[in-house]
Amino acid sequence: MPARPHAAIITVGTELVTGQRLDTNGAEIASALLASNLDVVEMLSVADDIDRLAAHLARLTGDCAVVVVTGGLGPTHDDITREAASRALKRPLVRAHEIEKTLASIIARHREPEAAEHILTQADVLDGADVIAPTTGTAPGQIVQTPGGVLLLLPGPPREMRPMLASFLGTTCPATPPIRLRSTGITESDAQIAAQRVIGDAQGVGLTVLAAPADVEVVLFDEGAGLPELERIGALVRAELGDVCYSSDGSSLAETVVMLARRRRVRLACAESCTGGKIASALTDIAGASEAFQGGVVSYANELKTDALGVPAEMLERFGAVSDETARAMVTGVAALTHAEFAVATTGIAGPDGGTAEKPVGLVWFGLQTPSGVSSVRREFFGDRAGVRTRATMFALDLLRRALMES
Amino acid sequence: MPARPHAAIITVGTELVTGQRLDTNGAEIASALLASNLDVVEMLSVADDIDRLAAHLARLTGDCAVVVVTGGLGPTHDDITREAASRALKRPLVRAHEIEKTLASIIARHREPEAAEHILTQADVLDGADVIAPTTGTAPGQIVQTPGGVLLLLPGPPREMRPMLASFLGTTCPATPPIRLRSTGITESDAQIAAQRVIGDAQGVGLTVLAAPADVEVVLFDEGAGLPELERIGALVRAELGDVCYSSDGSSLAETVVMLARRRRVRLACAESCTGGKIASALTDIAGASEAFQGGVVSYANELKTDALGVPAEMLERFGAVSDETARAMVTGVAALTHAEFAVATTGIAGPDGGTAEKPVGLVWFGLQTPSGVSSVRREFFGDRAGVRTRATMFALDLLRRALMES
Repeated sequence: MPARPHAAIITVGTELVTGQRLDTNGAEIASALLASNLDVVEMLSVADDIDRLAAHLARLTGDCAVVVVTGGLGPTHDDITREAASRALKRPLVRAHEIEKTLASIIARHREPEAAEHILTQADVLDGADVIAPTTGTAPGQIVQTPGGVLLLLPGPPREMRPMLASFLGTTCPATPPIRLRSTGITESDAQIAAQRVIGDAQGVGLTVLAAPADVEVVLFDEGAGLPELERIGALVRAELGDVCYSSDGSSLAETVVMLARRRRVRLACAESCTGGKIASALTDIAGASEAFQGGVVSYANELKTDALGVPAEMLERFGAVSDETARAMVTGVAALTHAEFAVATTGIAGPDGGTAEKPVGLVWFGLQTPSGVSSVRREFFGDRAGVRTRATMFALDLLRRALMES
Repeated sequence: MPARPHAAIITVGTELVTGQRLDTNGAEIASALLASNLDVVEMLSVADDIDRLAAHLARLTGDCAVVVVTGGLGPTHDDITREAASRALKRPLVRAHEIEKTLASIIARHREPEAAEHILTQADVLDGADVIAPTTGTAPGQIVQTPGGVLLLLPGPPREMRPMLASFLGTTCPATPPIRLRSTGITESDAQIAAQRVIGDAQGVGLTVLAAPADVEVVLFDEGAGLPELERIGALVRAELGDVCYSSDGSSLAETVVMLARRRRVRLACAESCTGGKIASALTDIAGASEAFQGGVVSYANELKTDALGVPAEMLERFGAVSDETARAMVTGVAALTHAEFAVATTGIAGPDGGTAEKPVGLVWFGLQTPSGVSSVRREFFGDRAGVRTRATMFALDLLRRALMES
């Protein structure tokens, strides 16, 4: 496999092209295609416009080995994906009788006779398509052979889409998965240089570096080298990245922290001022977090720092809420309250207002409690309010990760 | 203006087509174009592939009145947008001398002589383009006349992109902004039916209904009716939607809650179990939240419900953490701790594990404290862990909104 096969993703729905909804489906599918060693060359969101969708489908199915479409498979007249695919591939729609039967019980629940015909359109599939029966929801998925490879039509709701995508990728694309080294606390270009230095002139290993705020991912692909060589180079790149690298299987930083704490059977807690609940929210996003994460206090107001965490009012008065002293007192307080062995605290100025020459917007003090004692770190982050909050959250989670690794 | 002019958005960068980064720029631009009465027909993310980008630019600039591109304007060889636009529009690149001058100070900071030429490429603009000087960052924006209208090239970093987009839209698209009625607690189809019933056969008013989890937006466009008629119909649709409608200017639910609390000069707090910090995080995302939001407790573990919020251990033992009694005790506890006049509490089963026949995954109890007293509500939400947490967060914020409206 000298180069990876091309893939494209189309998400269908007017809500996507108006900014009302972030295209999380597209990103999730992109990530899954990457893990199957496919090279996603474009992602497209289109409004409910049948001509436009058909034109894109005709173009991409000739060009890409895999084209994935989500959305537009429901029962209303806005659901245009079946008809657009039929036009693009010049293949008629035929009714899938197995699917039709399962829809009968749904029709029985509707009062309006005309609802029946709408609902039954969900059983229409492209002639010759492999039908993926829904495990939840009503619309089936479809796998259709195309001039360039295969077209996969999936429903839009993530919990309907997800099992069908996994089933498709599991049977169709058993490629070597790439190695995904995720890091925080390193720039994109430094990560690129480090990885390139290791790879050198080695043949058959592809490299991509991806960056989000405070989160850099080095992805190594098998482009002919074979799995043992890919793993050998992956281990060397990980060593070169050093302790900024927090996972080698694509796990997020919060997942890594929860996994480390569960493995060590220790408890976690947090006291948050400027991050305002984002650390707790990131940890509780992870299923199984309750085995390690006790909770914490969002002490946005100074009174709450005193009343819930025991930060002395005189300390706040003397050093300010954004200070080394307050960060340490917050983390000590939340660790005592929750009996957690590992805790982190944040207090800073997220902006846009509240900055001074001495304490600018972006300044954050972190407190860290571990079984070895209390410490603190000062950082200045750039960016707007959202950027400062995201970077401070990642930094706090990384403090927990490093402390857990050392324990 | 019988129909709205078409627009398209292209975001450039390999990190977007691998699922590493959500395309928040695209969504933000889409929302701004919608507010300028433009009809976004497609949004596209492409990898750093010059031929593919040039082909899309050639296609879309012939087809759309406004094409916005972000990303790919930096100094590295991955930054392909200038060259791709030059090819697509068959216009040479020329160096903008004003921009070149401002880059000189940046070059002085680099050690490698070859860095200079890379950095100076950022001053290359399409011949005849209007240059938008950067207020932050180094790459200028460009406004280029095209066969179909105008092409706008913007840098990728949001804080560089944002002021340039606002400046462009402010001068180029002074259209009637649409009316954006946002609601929670109503289905997309019920909102559609309610709006359509009001609009009836009225001419010159466009309607789009957009849906995200627990968040439905009815957008009314001026398609010839004129502003007074649009506003008259907007008021009628809002009345028809009733108290599920929380804003008519596109503000988010968290923004609405913070605004209401600030206006009434009251304090807010929250005690979160299953939402795990998402309510606090949503409120503190809003600049100025500190004037109303005191903070709260993320009482994930039962011990913390007792130790920080004063929920009696016998109560947890007898009724369970997910119960009417616990929700009430949690909200009473957090209101007492924070001295907030309005507080909300959540305790539920987000899944995927922990559900029983009596207390299934998706069950959430809410506690609400207001100056009139304490109340509670039971809800069952469908969806996966992320969906349940999002819907519970929206519901809790809406409890606060309704309580504030009544006060």
